[in-house]
Amino acid sequence: MNYPVIVDVTLREGIADPEGATIERALPALGFVGVSHMRAGKSFRMDIDAESESAALEKAAALAERLLSNPVIENASARSGAKG
Amino acid sequence: MNYPVIVDVTLREGIADPEGATIERALPALGFVGVSHMRAGKSFRMDIDAESESAALEKAAALAERLLSNPVIENASARSGAKG
Repeated sequence: MNYPVIVDVTLREGIADPEGATIERALPALGFVGVSHMRAGKSFRMDIDAESESAALEKAAALAERLLSNPVIENASARSGAKG
Repeated sequence: MNYPVIVDVTLREGIADPEGATIERALPALGFVGVSHMRAGKSFRMDIDAESESAALEKAAALAERLLSNPVIENASARSGAKG
């Protein structure tokens, strides 16, 4: 069966995030105040063919570690993408 | 109070996603089979100072529409980033 899975890739704590910093700096000029700690990340949605949802998530976690993230500077986590 | 918020930006249905397509093509050579419909997206984590969580999410949705996404080709949605 196919299970929808979402892999979130975020920069590790302490790693510089120029994209997030640039967005945060631009906000006040656009009228948005009170926004802090902006961090940019990536997400990947996919369908995984597996025996169970937990097997699909395990496969996604392996894939995230090997292919979708750089473990030196990024954290990756897999979650179910099923709605509702 | 500060509320943690996550904004997810994904390509609209039908918009070409070369990044996702390239990843999907690379998977079988790396030993991952049964993965389909790979779509790449972005995510932004931030803390928003607001009166309530719903006000924070509303602010994040406005910000996502105006600054973090291109509404012509992307969908943006805001969700609570609180853990547990």
